[in-house]
Amino acid sequence: MEIFVYRPGADKVEEGFTVDQLAELLPDKSLTIWVDMHKPSEDDDHVLLDVFKFHPLSVDDCRADRHHPKVEEFPDYLYFILHGVTAKTDSEQFTTIELDGFLGPNFVVTYHHEEFRSINSVKQTVRSSPVACQRGPAYLLYQILDQLVDFYTPVLDDFDESIVKLEDEIFSLMTPDNSILEQIQNLKRSILRLRRISGKQLNILYRISHGDFKLISPEMMPYFRDIHDHLVRITDLAESYRDLIGGALDSYLSVVSNRTNDIMKVLTIFSAIMLPLTFIAGLYGMNFDNLPELHFQYSYFIVIGIMATVAIGMLAFFRRKGWLGTPRKREKS
Amino acid sequence: MEIFVYRPGADKVEEGFTVDQLAELLPDKSLTIWVDMHKPSEDDDHVLLDVFKFHPLSVDDCRADRHHPKVEEFPDYLYFILHGVTAKTDSEQFTTIELDGFLGPNFVVTYHHEEFRSINSVKQTVRSSPVACQRGPAYLLYQILDQLVDFYTPVLDDFDESIVKLEDEIFSLMTPDNSILEQIQNLKRSILRLRRISGKQLNILYRISHGDFKLISPEMMPYFRDIHDHLVRITDLAESYRDLIGGALDSYLSVVSNRTNDIMKVLTIFSAIMLPLTFIAGLYGMNFDNLPELHFQYSYFIVIGIMATVAIGMLAFFRRKGWLGTPRKREKS
Amino acid sequence: MEIFVYRPGADKVEEGFTVDQLAELLPDKSLTIWVDMHKPSEDDDHVLLDVFKFHPLSVDDCRADRHHPKVEEFPDYLYFILHGVTAKTDSEQFTTIELDGFLGPNFVVTYHHEEFRSINSVKQTVRSSPVACQRGPAYLLYQILDQLVDFYTPVLDDFDESIVKLEDEIFSLMTPDNSILEQIQNLKRSILRLRRISGKQLNILYRISHGDFKLISPEMMPYFRDIHDHLVRITDLAESYRDLIGGALDSYLSVVSNRTNDIMKVLTIFSAIMLPLTFIAGLYGMNFDNLPELHFQYSYFIVIGIMATVAIGMLAFFRRKGWLGTPRKREKS
Amino acid sequence: MEIFVYRPGADKVEEGFTVDQLAELLPDKSLTIWVDMHKPSEDDDHVLLDVFKFHPLSVDDCRADRHHPKVEEFPDYLYFILHGVTAKTDSEQFTTIELDGFLGPNFVVTYHHEEFRSINSVKQTVRSSPVACQRGPAYLLYQILDQLVDFYTPVLDDFDESIVKLEDEIFSLMTPDNSILEQIQNLKRSILRLRRISGKQLNILYRISHGDFKLISPEMMPYFRDIHDHLVRITDLAESYRDLIGGALDSYLSVVSNRTNDIMKVLTIFSAIMLPLTFIAGLYGMNFDNLPELHFQYSYFIVIGIMATVAIGMLAFFRRKGWLGTPRKREKS
Amino acid sequence: MEIFVYRPGADKVEEGFTVDQLAELLPDKSLTIWVDMHKPSEDDDHVLLDVFKFHPLSVDDCRADRHHPKVEEFPDYLYFILHGVTAKTDSEQFTTIELDGFLGPNFVVTYHHEEFRSINSVKQTVRSSPVACQRGPAYLLYQILDQLVDFYTPVLDDFDESIVKLEDEIFSLMTPDNSILEQIQNLKRSILRLRRISGKQLNILYRISHGDFKLISPEMMPYFRDIHDHLVRITDLAESYRDLIGGALDSYLSVVSNRTNDIMKVLTIFSAIMLPLTFIAGLYGMNFDNLPELHFQYSYFIVIGIMATVAIGMLAFFRRKGWLGTPRKREKS
Repeated sequence: MEIFVYRPGADKVEEGFTVDQLAELLPDKSLTIWVDMHKPSEDDDHVLLDVFKFHPLSVDDCRADRHHPKVEEFPDYLYFILHGVTAKTDSEQFTTIELDGFLGPNFVVTYHHEEFRSINSVKQTVRSSPVACQRGPAYLLYQILDQLVDFYTPVLDDFDESIVKLEDEIFSLMTPDNSILEQIQNLKRSILRLRRISGKQLNILYRISHGDFKLISPEMMPYFRDIHDHLVRITDLAESYRDLIGGALDSYLSVVSNRTNDIMKVLTIFSAIMLPLTFIAGLYGMNFDNLPELHFQYSYFIVIGIMATVAIGMLAFFRRKGWLGTPRKREKS
Repeated sequence: MEIFVYRPGADKVEEGFTVDQLAELLPDKSLTIWVDMHKPSEDDDHVLLDVFKFHPLSVDDCRADRHHPKVEEFPDYLYFILHGVTAKTDSEQFTTIELDGFLGPNFVVTYHHEEFRSINSVKQTVRSSPVACQRGPAYLLYQILDQLVDFYTPVLDDFDESIVKLEDEIFSLMTPDNSILEQIQNLKRSILRLRRISGKQLNILYRISHGDFKLISPEMMPYFRDIHDHLVRITDLAESYRDLIGGALDSYLSVVSNRTNDIMKVLTIFSAIMLPLTFIAGLYGMNFDNLPELHFQYSYFIVIGIMATVAIGMLAFFRRKGWLGTPRKREKS
Repeated sequence: MEIFVYRPGADKVEEGFTVDQLAELLPDKSLTIWVDMHKPSEDDDHVLLDVFKFHPLSVDDCRADRHHPKVEEFPDYLYFILHGVTAKTDSEQFTTIELDGFLGPNFVVTYHHEEFRSINSVKQTVRSSPVACQRGPAYLLYQILDQLVDFYTPVLDDFDESIVKLEDEIFSLMTPDNSILEQIQNLKRSILRLRRISGKQLNILYRISHGDFKLISPEMMPYFRDIHDHLVRITDLAESYRDLIGGALDSYLSVVSNRTNDIMKVLTIFSAIMLPLTFIAGLYGMNFDNLPELHFQYSYFIVIGIMATVAIGMLAFFRRKGWLGTPRKREKS
Repeated sequence: MEIFVYRPGADKVEEGFTVDQLAELLPDKSLTIWVDMHKPSEDDDHVLLDVFKFHPLSVDDCRADRHHPKVEEFPDYLYFILHGVTAKTDSEQFTTIELDGFLGPNFVVTYHHEEFRSINSVKQTVRSSPVACQRGPAYLLYQILDQLVDFYTPVLDDFDESIVKLEDEIFSLMTPDNSILEQIQNLKRSILRLRRISGKQLNILYRISHGDFKLISPEMMPYFRDIHDHLVRITDLAESYRDLIGGALDSYLSVVSNRTNDIMKVLTIFSAIMLPLTFIAGLYGMNFDNLPELHFQYSYFIVIGIMATVAIGMLAFFRRKGWLGTPRKREKS
Repeated sequence: MEIFVYRPGADKVEEGFTVDQLAELLPDKSLTIWVDMHKPSEDDDHVLLDVFKFHPLSVDDCRADRHHPKVEEFPDYLYFILHGVTAKTDSEQFTTIELDGFLGPNFVVTYHHEEFRSINSVKQTVRSSPVACQRGPAYLLYQILDQLVDFYTPVLDDFDESIVKLEDEIFSLMTPDNSILEQIQNLKRSILRLRRISGKQLNILYRISHGDFKLISPEMMPYFRDIHDHLVRITDLAESYRDLIGGALDSYLSVVSNRTNDIMKVLTIFSAIMLPLTFIAGLYGMNFDNLPELHFQYSYFIVIGIMATVAIGMLAFFRRKGWLGTPRKREKS
C-alpha cells in the first residue's frame, strides 16, 4: 500500500504515510489523497472497511477478481471496476487486468492484483510534480484512467498486424489448412472479447462524463469525455476488426472452394484427354479375326495422328472454357 | 411446509409451527417469518390463499409449473418466479427448476416442486445462526437468491468443458460425422436456453435492485445488485459460449469441406498418374501389323522408362501444387 | 347475433333479446351485456353503427378481414382486433381467424366471420353459471381472450412434433431431397408467421394489462397480465422453434454435404484400387517382341500376387485414412 | 395547376381559378382550397413562394426529386413528401413517384412531376360530389393519401406472383442457372427498397396520426390512423416477402448442391461398375505364355458371368445406398 | 490563417486581418467573423487558446487527427468535428478528411490539415458577395457544411459504378478468381466505413438541427435539417450499397459453385461415355482360346455399332437430364 498526500499549496506530493496517519488525514476534505494497493493483503481489505468505511460488498467485489466493469455510487464515494489490457507475446491473445477503485471527495483508492503500467506511470508523474494532484482527486483519477486507456492502443495495433498477416496467408494458401481456420477463430474470439470489454467500459465512462455522479464536477467532465471519446474510437476499431475477420473467414472458405475447383479441373482435364485415347488404343487391341484397319500399313501412324488430334482438340476445348492457364492476373498490383 | 420464525432479539430461529400458529404470527410485523413449501399439497395452496390472502392468480401461477421468470408487485406483497438450474449427468443438457416465492413486510414464502440445493443450504445456515434473519425478510430472500444463482456456475463450467472437448473432436475429425453436428446443435440449443433464462432473471433482478419495489429498502439494494452483477456475468458467459459454439459449427463445416478437398486430391493424383500410364500400355497392346516399336529389342524397357518418367513428372507437378505431403504443421503447438 | 344480458343479482344470464330490446338495455350501465355476432350480416353492421354508435372506421375494420391485431381507444369504447389460430389437418400450416371486438362500460361485442371454439366455450360457461358475468364486461372479455389464447397451445404442440419428425428424417436421410427442403421452408414460414402474430397480440395485451385504457380497471389488470404472460410463453416458444428450424436447415445442408463426401469416397476408393490394377494388366497386354516377363512360367501368378498386394495396400491406406467402415457410432444412444 | 375551391354550404366544388383569384381566396379560412400542380413550371414555384409564402427550402425540396419521405411542421403549414409506387411491366421492378404536398388551415397543395392515379381518382370524386371537401382540407388530404396507399396493393400482388413463379422454377430446375440467381437478387433488392420506402412513410403517418401536428385535429386522426394501419400491413407483407425471397435463395443454393450430388452419383456408379469390369477384361488380355485360364474351353463364358455378377453386385450395393432410382416422391402433392 | 470579417450593412466581406486585429474585433458581437486555419501552425493553436479562449482539450482534439465526428457544447461556443470524403483515383478506396470547427455567437473557426474543396468554394462565394455572411455565423456554417456534404455525392457515384462493374464481371466469370473476392471485400469494407462515417455525422447534424444547441437559432434549424436530410439520403444509399455488395458476394459464391458443377458435368459425361466403350474394347482384347465372337466375320463392325449405340444412348440420357447444351439463355437481356 502506497499513500500519496497533497496538501493544497504544497509544492510536492508527500509519501510514506502509515495507516494510522491515513485515518487522521482522511477527515481533512482539503487534501488530495491517493492510496494505491498493489497485490493487497487482508490488512489492506480491513483498511477499506474500517478506515474508509466502504460497503462490505464493494470490498468483496475488490477481492474477487474477474468482475465486469461497473460503476456504483454510494452516498460517500464512487466504486468502479475497469479493465486494462496487456498484450501477450503472441498477438492473438490478450489479457485483461482488473482495476478496482474508489473515488471520494478527497481521495482516490486504486486496488489491483496485477501490475499496471498506467499506474506506475502516474506515480512517476506525481512524484516529479504536484500538478496532477492540484486539481483534486477527480483530476487524479482522470490521469490514471487516461493512461489505462492509452495502453489499449498497442494491443489494437497487434490485432491489425495479425489480421493483415492472416489475409496474406489466406490468399497465398496452396492447400486448405485447419490451422488457418483456428487462427481466424481465435482472432475473432479475441476481438469479440475486446469489443465487449471496451463496450462496457464505454458505458461506464459515458455515465461518469455525463453528469451521473455528483463527485465528478462539471469542470471535470470534459476530461472524462475525452477518455470516453478515446474508448469510442477503440470500440469502433474493434468493430471494424470484426468486419475484417469476418471477411477473412469468407475469404478463407472461398479460397478453399476455389482450390477444390482447381483440383476438379485438373482431374477433368486428365480424364477427358486420357479416356478417349485409351479407348482408341483398346479398340485396336481387340483380337477380332477380321479387323481390317490392323492390316493397313500406316494404320498405326494414322491412329497416332487421330489420338494427337483428339488430345489437341480437348485442350482447345478446355482453353476455350478458360480452364487452362494461370488464373487471371490481379488487375491492380 | 416448514415454518421458521425469528423474533427480534432472539438468539435462535424457531421452527415447527402449525398453520394456525402461522395465522396468529403473521400480523406481528416485527417478526421475520420464512415458510418453505416443498412439493406443496392442496392444503398449502389454501394457506397461500386464506392465511396469506394472496391473489388467486398468483397462487394459480405457483401451482402451474414452467412459467417464465417474472416479478409482480401486489399491494401487500411481491410475487416472483425465478429458476435454478441443475446439470444432468450428460453435460449437453440441463434442467431448470422453478422457484415461486412471495416477499411480504415480515415474511418470505418459497414454493417449489423440486428440491433446491440452494434452499437446503440456506436452511442449514438459518438453523445454525439467526444472522440471516436478523436483517429482515428481504435479506433472507437475498441469501436464498444468492445461493440459487451460485449454483449456475457448475452448469456453465460443464458447458465450457463440453465445448472444448467438442472443438478438439472437430479438429481431429477424420470423417464427417452427423453425430458431431447433433452435438453442436444440442449444445447450441442448451446455451440459447440458458441465455434466455438468465437474461430474463437478469431483468427481474434489475428491477428488484433498482428501486422498483417498495418492499426492497434502499439498504437492501446493494445486495440484490450483487446478485444482478453475478447474473450479468453468467449471461455474458452464455453469450460468449454462443459465439464459441457458432465458431465450432463453422469449423466443423470447414473441416468437412477440407476433408472433401483431401479426397478429391487423392482421386485426382491417382487418376492423373494412372490414366496416362494405362494409355501408354494400351498403345502397345494394339494389334497393328505394322507397329514398328514392338519389334525393337529394348522397346519394352524404354517404355517402362517413359512410364516412370511420366509418373515422376506427375508427382513433381502435384508436389509443386502443394497437394502432396502432410498439411502444414500448426505454427503454434 | 346472440345477446346475453346479466342483471346484477340475477342467478342466470338471460338470452334471446331483439335489437330493439338491446337499444333499450344499453343505457343501463349496471348490466353486463354480451353481443356475439357470428358471420355478421349487413343488419349487424347497422346495429354497430346505429345502436352502439361506433366510429364508422371501426365498423369498416370489422367488416374487412385480415387486419393486423390492434387496439384503439375511443371516447366511449375500446375497439380491438385479435387473432385465434386453428391447426389445419397437416401440421405445417395453420390458419389465423380474426376476432373483432368492442368493450364498453357495460357491454362486450364480439364480431367474427369464422367459428371460434373459444367463444363457444365461453357461451357454455355463461349459460351454465352467471359467474363469468358477475364481475362486469372486462372480466367477461378476459375469459374470452383467455380461451382464445389457450387454443394456441395445440398448434404449438403440432409444430413441436413436426420439427422432431423432420429432424429424424434429416438424420436418416439417404439421398438429398428437395421435399425436405420445402418442408423446412414451409415450417419456417409458418413459425415466423406465428411469431409475428403472437408478438403483435403480445403488444396489445401489454397495453391492456398495464393501465393504458381506462375501461380496464386496476383490479382487472392482473387477469389480463395473466393472458399476457401466457402469450409471452407462446412467443418465446415460437422463438425457440425458429432456432430449431434454423438448426434443422443447417443440419440438412450438412447432411447433404456429408453424403456428397461419402459418394466421393466410394468413387475415390474404386478408382484408386482399380486404376493401378488395370494399368498392370495393360502392361502385360503389350505386344512387344521382347517382353521377358511374359515368358517366365510363374509370371501370371506373380502378377496376380502383385495386384492383390496393391489392392490390399490401397485398402489399408484408406482404412488408415478412416474412409472405410461405417461412420463412427453415435457416442450417446 | 388546377385549383378547386369549396365554399361551405355550396353543393359543388368550383374549379378554374387563376393565380390572382387564389391569392384573394387564401385569407378566407372557411374555404377548402385544393391546388394540384402537375409537372409544375417555374411560375408554379413562384406561387408557392409568393402566394403561399412557403419556406424557400421547402420549395427547393419540391423542385428536386428523389427525396426521402418526410414531414415537417412550419408555423403555418405542414410540408410532406410521400411516395406512390407504380409497377412497371416486368414485375421485378417498380418505380416510386414522389408526391410533395402542403397542408394549411384551409388548403391542400399537391405537387408532382409524374402522373398520380390516386390524385386523378380524387379529382373525379371531388368533381362529382363536394363530400370530400366538406370536412376540411385534412379530410381531403386523407382521401388523397388513402388512394395513394391503395395503389401499393397491385405492386405487392405482383411481387407475390413473381416469388411463387420463381420458387416453382427453382424446384423444377434441371441445371444451375445464373439467371435465376439474378432474378432472386433483383427481387430481393426491390423488396428491400419497397420495405424501406413503406417503412419510412409509416413513420410519417404515425406522426401525423398520433397528434404530432396541430393542423390535424383529433377528429381527423382515426382516418390517418387507418392509412397508417394499411401501411403497417404493407410493410409487414414486404417483410414477409423478404423472408420468402431469402428462403428462395437458400432453396436455390440447396437445389444446386443437390444437382452436384446427383452428378457425382452418376459418375460414381459408372466408374464403380466399369472400372472392375475393364480390369477383368485387361487381366485376360495379358500375353503371358502361361496363363492357364485362357485355355479352358468355357473361360470366356465364366468370365462374362463373373462380370455380370460384379455389375449386378455393384448395382445392388448402390441400390442399398439409395443412390439408384428417382428421388423420393414428395409426400404431399 | 485567413480571416474574413463582415460588418453589418457593409457590401463586402473584408479580408487580411492580423491576429491582433482579430482580438480587437472579437468582442463586437454584431460582426460575422470567419477564421479558416489550413495546415495550422503552433501559432494558430495559440490563437485558439489565447484569443478565442477555447478549452485546452478542444484544441488538443483539433491538433490530433483521425477523431470521430462529434459535437460538444461549451458555455461560449460549439466545437465540432466533421469529415469530408475524397475519392482516390481507384474507386474502391476513399479518404476521409477531418474538419474541426468552432461556432461562436459572432464567429466561425474552421481548422483542417488537408485542403477542403468545400471550404475553397465557400471562400469564393464570400469574396464575391456578402450574402453568405449577412445572416450570421450559423448561416455561414450551414453553407460550409452543405458544401462538405455535397462532395460526398461523387464518391457515392463511384461506388455505384464499381458495384455495377463488379457484378458484370461476376456474371461473366469463367474461372473462380480470388481477385474478384478481394475486390468485393475491399468494396464492402469501404462501404461499411462510409456508412459508419455518414451515420455518425447524421447523428451530429440531427442534434444541431433539432434544437440541442442554443447557438443555432430556430430560424437556422431548417437549413441544418436540410443538410441532415441530405446525409440521411447518403446513409441510406450506403446502406443499400451494402445490400448490393452482400448480394454480389452471394452471387460470386454461387457462380463459383455453378462452375464446379459444370466441370463435374463434363467429367461425368466423358467418363460415362468412355468407360463402357473401353470396357467393350477390353472385352474383345482378351486372349481366350475359345472366344467365339472373335471369329465371326462382321464382329468388329457389329461391336463398333454397339459402341456407337452406347455412346449415343449415353448422350441421350444426359440430354434428358439437361446436362448437355448451353445453359438456358437469360430471359431478359
